Amino acid sequence: MKVSVLSLFPEYFQGLLNTSIISRARENGLFEFETVNFREFTKSKHGHVDDAPYGGGAGMVLMCQPLLDALKSIQTPTSKVILLSPQGQKFDQNKAAELSREDHLIFICGHYEGFDERIRDYVDMQLSLGDFVLTGGEPAAAAMCDSILRLIPGVIKEESAGGDSFSDGLLEYPQYTRPYEYEGKKVPDVLMSGHHANIEKWRHEESLKRTLLYRPDLLKSAVLSEQDHKDLARLKEELKSQVPQEEAESI
Amino acid sequence: MKVSVLSLFPEYFQGLLNTSIISRARENGLFEFETVNFREFTKSKHGHVDDAPYGGGAGMVLMCQPLLDALKSIQTPTSKVILLSPQGQKFDQNKAAELSREDHLIFICGHYEGFDERIRDYVDMQLSLGDFVLTGGEPAAAAMCDSILRLIPGVIKEESAGGDSFSDGLLEYPQYTRPYEYEGKKVPDVLMSGHHANIEKWRHEESLKRTLLYRPDLLKSAVLSEQDHKDLARLKEELKSQVPQEEAESI
Repeated sequence: MKVSVLSLFPEYFQGLLNTSIISRARENGLFEFETVNFREFTKSKHGHVDDAPYGGGAGMVLMCQPLLDALKSIQTPTSKVILLSPQGQKFDQNKAAELSREDHLIFICGHYEGFDERIRDYVDMQLSLGDFVLTGGEPAAAAMCDSILRLIPGVIKEESAGGDSFSDGLLEYPQYTRPYEYEGKKVPDVLMSGHHANIEKWRHEESLKRTLLYRPDLLKSAVLSEQDHKDLARLKEELKSQVPQEEAESI
Repeated sequence: MKVSVLSLFPEYFQGLLNTSIISRARENGLFEFETVNFREFTKSKHGHVDDAPYGGGAGMVLMCQPLLDALKSIQTPTSKVILLSPQGQKFDQNKAAELSREDHLIFICGHYEGFDERIRDYVDMQLSLGDFVLTGGEPAAAAMCDSILRLIPGVIKEESAGGDSFSDGLLEYPQYTRPYEYEGKKVPDVLMSGHHANIEKWRHEESLKRTLLYRPDLLKSAVLSEQDHKDLARLKEELKSQVPQEEAESI
């Protein structure tokens, strides 16, 4: 897997590349990463990459030429070209898994004012990190890369990825470590029991419970057993006052 | 406004602080930013900040002591303490606006394996960047900071923030800049007309159209005029074959 990022601020990605897990994986050759500053591709005499919008209005708009020339210089037949844009498809764990199996990802980081509309014709997909505005595509590309790269086999321990929130469609169960008591708050008895079957059962039920309480929308697409459905019915009754009502109806 | 970030990887935030808009705003004193490496607060002899989970299982869990001692060292009565967590409330533009008016934000960046559950008792709110898993809270905190800090008055030009996607609940209209023709693709005639009222009308309709096509869910909470409702009804008819059917029903 190779990741290329087209950006006016390539230094943004140093943080991503220097954090322990991602940095180690890169050193171990599990993926390649490059940044391309498309300012270097401009044919403008003054080194400009943006210009005023046709039709008037505030702010500057990224021009086609520097960005698309940079893109064409690195694109190959197996590249997947991704434009970060608020109107793109919402990035999520399924998209991360899908993209982690690609050969070559190219992320195009725009500029907060916007880019020439014609750039969209040269990309394979448009992705959005969420319903908020950023000064540029960099924070979005860095977050997506982190999420995608950790799913490449060998980057993190397999059993860890399996226990992730969202990997089975549920939120993760609560975790505790030493000390047994912190400022009067103790670890739940079951975790101290050494009874593995009970611990598994408790953890799974806690996952169901907190998904029901905090993200009931996830239950619609979660992989649930017959027992899970029974447990959920009981938990809905028990937690009646805490479950958001409109959501509870629809589950 | 002051932003503090508790993190084991404080260097992650260099990228955010070095990009043009945010960097200039910080130099101009529009906000303060500090990172606190909570590893420096550990009382563990070997400098550890995590330990094995009670009840067994893969991975390590962040301990209460180093993180909460670090938190207590910087917390004041006006601090808002934010924990990055997949089970938190989804971060969006409204949340960014709300947080941009706070005195002091403290972000706690966890670790991908998880943290001791008791840490949640010490925070004011839990936020999630989206439905995907990261190696740590850093990419999420950096993206949220970018989104929040650009809304502090003076960081970007006011008229630019007003034209953002989501600021009126709609996606932004398409932008074009020079050249007039790029690889056979021309700028729409209306933008070349110099007729401001027509340009405004076209842009607003394009915003409506692409919101209808790509993010029809946003229309439920957008601020729409009588004319907008009429235009939408017409656009729905015109774009029938392209609008996702299930969404179209409910608008």
